[in-house]
Amino acid sequence: MDLLKIGGRDFSSRLFVGTGKFPSNKLMLESILASGSEMITVAMKRIDMQHEEDDDMMRHINRDKVQFLPNTSGVRNAEEAILAAKLSRDCFGTDFIKLEIHPDPKYLLPDPIETLKATEVLAREGFVVLPYIQADPVLCKRLEEVGSAAVMPLGAPIGTNKGLKTRDLLEIIIAESRVPVVIDAGLGAPSHAADAMEMGADAVLVNTAIAVAGNPVEMAVAFKLAVEAGRKAYLAGLGRQSTFAQATSPLTSFLD
Amino acid sequence: MDLLKIGGRDFSSRLFVGTGKFPSNKLMLESILASGSEMITVAMKRIDMQHEEDDDMMRHINRDKVQFLPNTSGVRNAEEAILAAKLSRDCFGTDFIKLEIHPDPKYLLPDPIETLKATEVLAREGFVVLPYIQADPVLCKRLEEVGSAAVMPLGAPIGTNKGLKTRDLLEIIIAESRVPVVIDAGLGAPSHAADAMEMGADAVLVNTAIAVAGNPVEMAVAFKLAVEAGRKAYLAGLGRQSTFAQATSPLTSFLD
Amino acid sequence: MDLLKIGGRDFSSRLFVGTGKFPSNKLMLESILASGSEMITVAMKRIDMQHEEDDDMMRHINRDKVQFLPNTSGVRNAEEAILAAKLSRDCFGTDFIKLEIHPDPKYLLPDPIETLKATEVLAREGFVVLPYIQADPVLCKRLEEVGSAAVMPLGAPIGTNKGLKTRDLLEIIIAESRVPVVIDAGLGAPSHAADAMEMGADAVLVNTAIAVAGNPVEMAVAFKLAVEAGRKAYLAGLGRQSTFAQATSPLTSFLD
Amino acid sequence: MDLLKIGGRDFSSRLFVGTGKFPSNKLMLESILASGSEMITVAMKRIDMQHEEDDDMMRHINRDKVQFLPNTSGVRNAEEAILAAKLSRDCFGTDFIKLEIHPDPKYLLPDPIETLKATEVLAREGFVVLPYIQADPVLCKRLEEVGSAAVMPLGAPIGTNKGLKTRDLLEIIIAESRVPVVIDAGLGAPSHAADAMEMGADAVLVNTAIAVAGNPVEMAVAFKLAVEAGRKAYLAGLGRQSTFAQATSPLTSFLD
Repeated sequence: MDLLKIGGRDFSSRLFVGTGKFPSNKLMLESILASGSEMITVAMKRIDMQHEEDDDMMRHINRDKVQFLPNTSGVRNAEEAILAAKLSRDCFGTDFIKLEIHPDPKYLLPDPIETLKATEVLAREGFVVLPYIQADPVLCKRLEEVGSAAVMPLGAPIGTNKGLKTRDLLEIIIAESRVPVVIDAGLGAPSHAADAMEMGADAVLVNTAIAVAGNPVEMAVAFKLAVEAGRKAYLAGLGRQSTFAQATSPLTSFLD
Repeated sequence: MDLLKIGGRDFSSRLFVGTGKFPSNKLMLESILASGSEMITVAMKRIDMQHEEDDDMMRHINRDKVQFLPNTSGVRNAEEAILAAKLSRDCFGTDFIKLEIHPDPKYLLPDPIETLKATEVLAREGFVVLPYIQADPVLCKRLEEVGSAAVMPLGAPIGTNKGLKTRDLLEIIIAESRVPVVIDAGLGAPSHAADAMEMGADAVLVNTAIAVAGNPVEMAVAFKLAVEAGRKAYLAGLGRQSTFAQATSPLTSFLD
Repeated sequence: MDLLKIGGRDFSSRLFVGTGKFPSNKLMLESILASGSEMITVAMKRIDMQHEEDDDMMRHINRDKVQFLPNTSGVRNAEEAILAAKLSRDCFGTDFIKLEIHPDPKYLLPDPIETLKATEVLAREGFVVLPYIQADPVLCKRLEEVGSAAVMPLGAPIGTNKGLKTRDLLEIIIAESRVPVVIDAGLGAPSHAADAMEMGADAVLVNTAIAVAGNPVEMAVAFKLAVEAGRKAYLAGLGRQSTFAQATSPLTSFLD
Repeated sequence: MDLLKIGGRDFSSRLFVGTGKFPSNKLMLESILASGSEMITVAMKRIDMQHEEDDDMMRHINRDKVQFLPNTSGVRNAEEAILAAKLSRDCFGTDFIKLEIHPDPKYLLPDPIETLKATEVLAREGFVVLPYIQADPVLCKRLEEVGSAAVMPLGAPIGTNKGLKTRDLLEIIIAESRVPVVIDAGLGAPSHAADAMEMGADAVLVNTAIAVAGNPVEMAVAFKLAVEAGRKAYLAGLGRQSTFAQATSPLTSFLD
C-alpha cells in the first residue's frame, strides 16, 4: 500500500488540511471529514478557546485516525516558536509541530534563519518538526540535516491561490530531498494539487482554497480526488511533453 | 444530477477517451473501462480490420452505456470528411462524428474553412457533429450557427502533452458558447484535465496521455478522478487569486 | 543590411505602430516619430475628418519613409472589408491594407472565413494584404496560398497587454510560413516585443501599449529598442534552456 | 539623470556582465565593451593566472569607468567566503564583492544561512557586499539590515536561461527593498532582461546568455538595448493587463 510516513506514523491520505478561515466551525468539521485528510493543522490560538465551541469541534475528530498538526503561526523568531511549540505539545498532546515563523505580517513569508534555528532545537527535543519555508533547495537540505521530519516549501505566497509558481525550485527540492516534501501555501485549485503530486511531491497542504470556496465541503472532496489523481499519475508514469504533433488515431487511408 | 447533453444523449462522465496509440488492444479496453468514459473515439481505419482482433475489442464495450464517436482523422478537406462520415455512419451505426480535418501531416492542426463547410453539410444531414478546431472564438460561434453539436477546441497541439496553452482564448470560448465545449488535444496530465474543468469546460478528450503512460489503466483512473475533481470545483465555486498573503490561521497572540 | 520586404517595399524598422487611443494627435505624432516606425496603421474613420486636425497630422509624416497601412477595423464580413479596402486605396493612395474583420464588438477577434475570402479577392486586385488573424497555422498557410503579403497572428486578444499567450502556435507559424509573420495584438510591454522577435517573428505591431503609457513618447522609444534587441538576439543565436545549473565562473579552487 | 548608486558609486548602465564561459578572452573583452556595462564580475580563479593572458585582458578595461565585482564562486560557507573576499580585495583593489556561497556543485544554489553570516561580517569590515541569493523576501530584508549594499535574487537556477521563474517573489522583493535589487542568474534572453527591468528591478546580471551565444558581441548589444528598453518602459509607466479587448482604432462606421 502506498503510505506516507512522517514521525513514525503512516498516512494513507496525502492531503493535509488547514482549519482557518472557514465560515463556521460546522463547515470546517464537515469539510475535514469530507477531505479524508489524516493530518490537520490547528492554530495555537484555539487553545484560548478550549471551553468554547472549538473545543467541541475537537471532540468530533477521531485522533486515532487523524493527526493534529499544531502550527506556530504568528511567532516572529526561533525563541517564540520554541515556546509556542512547547505550549502546543501540552495543549494538543502531540509532538508534531508545523513551524511557521514569519516576521512580516503583510506577506506572511517564512524566515529561513529562524526556522533553521528552531528546527534544530525542537528536533533535538523530540518534536516531529514540519517547517514552512521558501522553495529553497539548500535550506531544505540543511533542515533535513538538523532533523526536520519533512519540508514544506511554498508553491506561491500564502493565500494567493496562484498554484506552483516556484515550480523550477520545487523540482530540485523533490529530486534531492530524503525527507517527505509537502507543498504548502498557494494551492488554489484541485488542478494545482494534482500538479504538485504529479511532480512527485509527497503530500500537499490546502487551507484557503477549501475554506473560502462557495461550497467548502464539495471543494474538500474535489481536492481529495485531485490529490489521488495526481499521486496515481505520478506512480503510473506520465508521458513527456513534445514539440511536434503525433497522431493518436491511425490516419484514415481508405481514401487514398 | 449533473449530466452533459450532446446529440440528445445524456452523459454522466465528462471524460472522453481516444483509442489510438495503446500498446495493445487489451490495455486499451481495460483503460477505457477504468476511465468510466461514456464517449470513446474510434478511427475509421479500424473498420478495415473488422474480422480481426479490433472487432473483438468492440464486442466488449456496452454500447447502451458507451457512445462511439468515430473520427475522420486523416481526411484533408470537407469533401473527404463528408464521405468518411457517411461511411462511418454505416460501419458504426451512429450519427455521432468527430470531425478532424488536418491537411498537414506534421502538426495535424485543423483547417477552419473546411471544418466549417463540412459541419454545415453534415449537421443538415442529421449528423451529431463534434468538430476538432483551433481555440478560435469566432469560428466556434460560426460552427454553433451551422448546427455543431459541440465544439472541440485544442488546448495545445495534439500529442504534445503541454496542457492549456490556449487558455486565454478558451476562456472566451467557454464564456460565449451555447453548445458544450470539449477541450481536445494537448492534455498531458490529470492536472491539465482538472484545470480545463475548473475553467468551466463541459468535458475533455484525452488519448495520448493515457495510451503512452507507463501504466495506462492506472492513468485512466487518474484522469477520471481529475475530471471529477475539476468539475466539482467548478460547481463548488473556486476562490480568486490574490496578490497579497492572507493568514489562514488566526495569528498567535498569546505571546504579545 | 537586415531589411524586411513586404509588397515590394523595404523596411529597416521592424516595429509597426498603430495610431489609435493616443491622448492627443500631437502625442501620437511624436510617438510615431520616436518609434522610428516605417509602417503605421491608420483607421478608415480618419478620412471622415480630413479637413480637420487629423489631416494636419498626416502632413507631418514623410510618406517616402513611412508606409501608411490603412485598416478595415469595424467591418463585419468580406464584402464590407473589400469595400472599405477600395475606399482606403482612394483616400490614402496606397495598395497596402490591413484586413481586420471582427464581427463581434466585445472581443474584436478576427473571423477566419471572411478574412480568407477577402484576402483572396483583394490580393487578386493588386492589394498588398496584411490580414489580422488568430494564431492558426493552417489558416496562415491558406492565406499565403491566396496571395497574402504577410500574416498577422495575434499574441493575445487585442488590447489586453498580455504578451505571447499563443506562443506554441506562433512557433509553428514562424517555422512554416513563407511570407513575413508580424505579431499583432496583445503585446503590452517591450519585453513582449523582444520575445516575439527572439522567436523569429519578422516584425511586431504595437498600439495600445504605447498609446496608453504614462509617457507614450518614451514608451515608443522603449519598444524601438526592444524590437532591435530581440531581432539582434535572434540573429546572434540564443542559447538553449537547460535544467541543470552550469557554473559561469571557474569555481574557486585555491581554498582546496 | 537616471543613475544607479551602489557602494558610493554611480552607474549609468544597469547591465552587469559576467566574464565566465566565453569561447575566448578576446570575445569576452569585446562583448564587455559592446555591452556598455560598468560592472563586471571577475572570478577569484583568474588571479592564479595573473601573468598570463587573463592579466592582459584586465589591462584593456578602463577601471575609472568599469567597476570590477570579484565573486566568491566556489566557496562553501561563510568562513571560506570571508577569506576569499579578503584575498580578492588585495588582488583586484576593490571593496566590491559578489558573495556566492553554494555548497552544492550540481545546482550551484545559494546558502541563505552562510550568506547572511558572511554579509554581516564583510559589511562591518567595509566591503560593498552584493549577495547572490534565492528570491526570498525575508532573507532580503535581513541582508539589508546587516548592511548588504544590494541584493541579487535569482530569476531561475543559474545557467538555465529560463527567465523570471521566481516572478511572484521578485515582485515582493522589489516592492519592499530599500537597497538596489539586481536580478541575477537565469536570464537567458534580452526579453527576460527587459522583463526584469519593467518590473522595477534596479539592474540585471547576465553571463551565460551572452557568453554562449552564437555571436556573443552582438548578443551583448542586444542585452544592452533590452535593459535600456525595460528601464525606459518602467519609468514611462506601463499599462495594465486587461481581460477584454479594447479597440485601438475608431471602429469604421461609414458603412452603417
